[in-house]
Amino acid sequence: MKKIAVFPGSFDPFTNGHADIALRASMLFDEVIIGIGHNSKKKRYFPLDFMIRKIEETFQDNDRVKVEHYNELTASYAQKRGAQFLVRGLRNTTDFEYENSIAQANKHIYGNLETIFIITSPQYAHISSTIVREIHNYGQNINEFLPYDL
Amino acid sequence: MKKIAVFPGSFDPFTNGHADIALRASMLFDEVIIGIGHNSKKKRYFPLDFMIRKIEETFQDNDRVKVEHYNELTASYAQKRGAQFLVRGLRNTTDFEYENSIAQANKHIYGNLETIFIITSPQYAHISSTIVREIHNYGQNINEFLPYDL
Amino acid sequence: MKKIAVFPGSFDPFTNGHADIALRASMLFDEVIIGIGHNSKKKRYFPLDFMIRKIEETFQDNDRVKVEHYNELTASYAQKRGAQFLVRGLRNTTDFEYENSIAQANKHIYGNLETIFIITSPQYAHISSTIVREIHNYGQNINEFLPYDL
Amino acid sequence: MKKIAVFPGSFDPFTNGHADIALRASMLFDEVIIGIGHNSKKKRYFPLDFMIRKIEETFQDNDRVKVEHYNELTASYAQKRGAQFLVRGLRNTTDFEYENSIAQANKHIYGNLETIFIITSPQYAHISSTIVREIHNYGQNINEFLPYDL
Amino acid sequence: MKKIAVFPGSFDPFTNGHADIALRASMLFDEVIIGIGHNSKKKRYFPLDFMIRKIEETFQDNDRVKVEHYNELTASYAQKRGAQFLVRGLRNTTDFEYENSIAQANKHIYGNLETIFIITSPQYAHISSTIVREIHNYGQNINEFLPYDL
Amino acid sequence: MKKIAVFPGSFDPFTNGHADIALRASMLFDEVIIGIGHNSKKKRYFPLDFMIRKIEETFQDNDRVKVEHYNELTASYAQKRGAQFLVRGLRNTTDFEYENSIAQANKHIYGNLETIFIITSPQYAHISSTIVREIHNYGQNINEFLPYDL
Repeated sequence: MKKIAVFPGSFDPFTNGHADIALRASMLFDEVIIGIGHNSKKKRYFPLDFMIRKIEETFQDNDRVKVEHYNELTASYAQKRGAQFLVRGLRNTTDFEYENSIAQANKHIYGNLETIFIITSPQYAHISSTIVREIHNYGQNINEFLPYDL
Repeated sequence: MKKIAVFPGSFDPFTNGHADIALRASMLFDEVIIGIGHNSKKKRYFPLDFMIRKIEETFQDNDRVKVEHYNELTASYAQKRGAQFLVRGLRNTTDFEYENSIAQANKHIYGNLETIFIITSPQYAHISSTIVREIHNYGQNINEFLPYDL
Repeated sequence: MKKIAVFPGSFDPFTNGHADIALRASMLFDEVIIGIGHNSKKKRYFPLDFMIRKIEETFQDNDRVKVEHYNELTASYAQKRGAQFLVRGLRNTTDFEYENSIAQANKHIYGNLETIFIITSPQYAHISSTIVREIHNYGQNINEFLPYDL
Repeated sequence: MKKIAVFPGSFDPFTNGHADIALRASMLFDEVIIGIGHNSKKKRYFPLDFMIRKIEETFQDNDRVKVEHYNELTASYAQKRGAQFLVRGLRNTTDFEYENSIAQANKHIYGNLETIFIITSPQYAHISSTIVREIHNYGQNINEFLPYDL
Repeated sequence: MKKIAVFPGSFDPFTNGHADIALRASMLFDEVIIGIGHNSKKKRYFPLDFMIRKIEETFQDNDRVKVEHYNELTASYAQKRGAQFLVRGLRNTTDFEYENSIAQANKHIYGNLETIFIITSPQYAHISSTIVREIHNYGQNINEFLPYDL
Repeated sequence: MKKIAVFPGSFDPFTNGHADIALRASMLFDEVIIGIGHNSKKKRYFPLDFMIRKIEETFQDNDRVKVEHYNELTASYAQKRGAQFLVRGLRNTTDFEYENSIAQANKHIYGNLETIFIITSPQYAHISSTIVREIHNYGQNINEFLPYDL
């Protein structure tokens, strides 16, 4: 059976840290779907379509990695897409506790959905979308934090 | 002297994790007051009256547990109700650091108010009101996370 | 029913931080038994008899606090002494995770043994028996860390 | 070369914990600039001018400590002011992880900006501006948390 | 290419928590090798041969799971066995930080060795081999912590 | 007044992570004394003399950095050497809590000894002397973790 994983997030923006996790996950799974959770009531900083295009560009040579968006519970979306796994990056202990709660909740909703964790490479561990947005907001170039050019 | 504890929270909603703490606290104290802190300017997801009724229902056979709401500093409310103790559940280290700060601040305001901690049972440790609300918001049944039926 | 708690530890030595927890626990329980876990194969830095005497001296005016020693699983000892509760101090998140594991294991062994946590007062939170022993070992006076004089 | 450090924050309000860090930093650096980051779109609880005046009052006898406000990236502001260092207080592990991310991002933007950390004194470690604002908001006196009178 | 993972540990003893991780890993990898790291100079509490037999017994119906022992760096052993992955269980934040360090070191030694993490199921998260050994050492039955009978 | 800091540790061995902290500290202090705490009863893996020589070699072009060894409380040693500061590297939250305890204890013993923290650069944060020793012990080359050649 094909092993499919969803890599969920808001990716606003998708950073080098996210690209690192997606790439490494693609060594483990037959298909990695980068799922941009998007609730139309919440405003994004970088538009959804723009981000999807940039992520596609990033992985154009890796046919195991796809990008999509969804507007439902992550666990329901994963089930609909036939994924048996979620994949998440861990940067630090704060991430760990949050992800632990989410992973257990996802198991409750959709029993055999397994969450797999990969620790973010040290050189990317300090990059968060929040910090990158703030830097951009003050007019600084953020290309060094991204796997594509803005 | 009667030992009275306030178990404060927003309980939006009150979950199995909260019920676990309240029940275990009722073995230790003569009276446990579940105090729903409510600021009329903040909007709740589940209405205050509805939640009070559901909590009363949950503890209808345990006459040491009561439910009330308040709109002031937790320490002031506890003093007014004659409580010498606050009781709080700890799920993980993030909880611990937050609760530690709050407990010290409460001691400053009302010198002999002691905070007692109980670690949430493992099977409930991943349940947070935030996650439960999100699941409900996407139209999924959340009864398995609650000590009452919605 | 009388509420009895065991406050277990190796107390080598018993510090101001421990005294703070025992005193505050004695406001909550009818009886607090300071239980010095002692395995005759492990060497103590401060002799067991000496430490028992010093703790007795410290609480000579508080008849709810006692001191004893034991050489078995803490949960078994608590059961033998008719205690329904263990009480433990929490200084920081490292303590929290360790105590969480121990508390769950104790519940497994002796079903209705409940562990209650009190956060160490800030001025004592940095005092550990290990550090105090090391200071003493280098010939410095440690009385300021202890509720009795050496 | 004169060693200049910026101590950045929103200081809404500036507390005893902040004063402790600024004072101790002034033993280490030739000049400590308390920089109030202020984005005119975000509303403060205590007005900016009022807070600047109160901080000036607090350090009127310490000519190594100054207070200013800025509205740009902290790293850019530090560079403009000729500071080679940022100084930050650490209260607990949650602070640590957040500060770690920020410090690395600042290094990316302005290569030789070094962040120096001082651990908040235990008696102030539980004071956060958020908790102090909440206490004030409910009409309680907060002078015991502040190095000046309101 | 066959996906092979080593699940390394001292497994003294192998617990329900370890069995949970090995079983879940076997859904992800084509082969999971439980590798008991054993240095003949260190004394085990449960003999190596006994533990290997018990683990084999536990997974006799799962032909993707094997058990072996090794006495070298985990990364070297994994390379020798043709494994591209290590798999580790995470119980709490203390585990996380330790595992993070080890994972980075393993990558240094054997560049393309990827460590995959699975969070231990809540009901097993408090079980550690150290605690289980201590319970056994005091003569209590530990079968409820193990996937086999002693 | 000359600003002198002691950078204490066992440095068994001194790694790239330690060199990173010492170098960055030398931008801040007039003199940084790398102090190897050594208790003649404890056995080192790398001999004391060898390590002192290697550290001297590493900093031969930086005349603000020195290396010494001592056998007493770190706070007493710092006082004897006229140091007003200790400097410590922080890699993660486990480090933070340990260092916090030690820093407060040092302040108790020698009132005006201030501990300054620098966060280890991400690329070195996973290197610990313990892991490096273990790698060496299994016969692997460890030069990539060290600022000198073995």
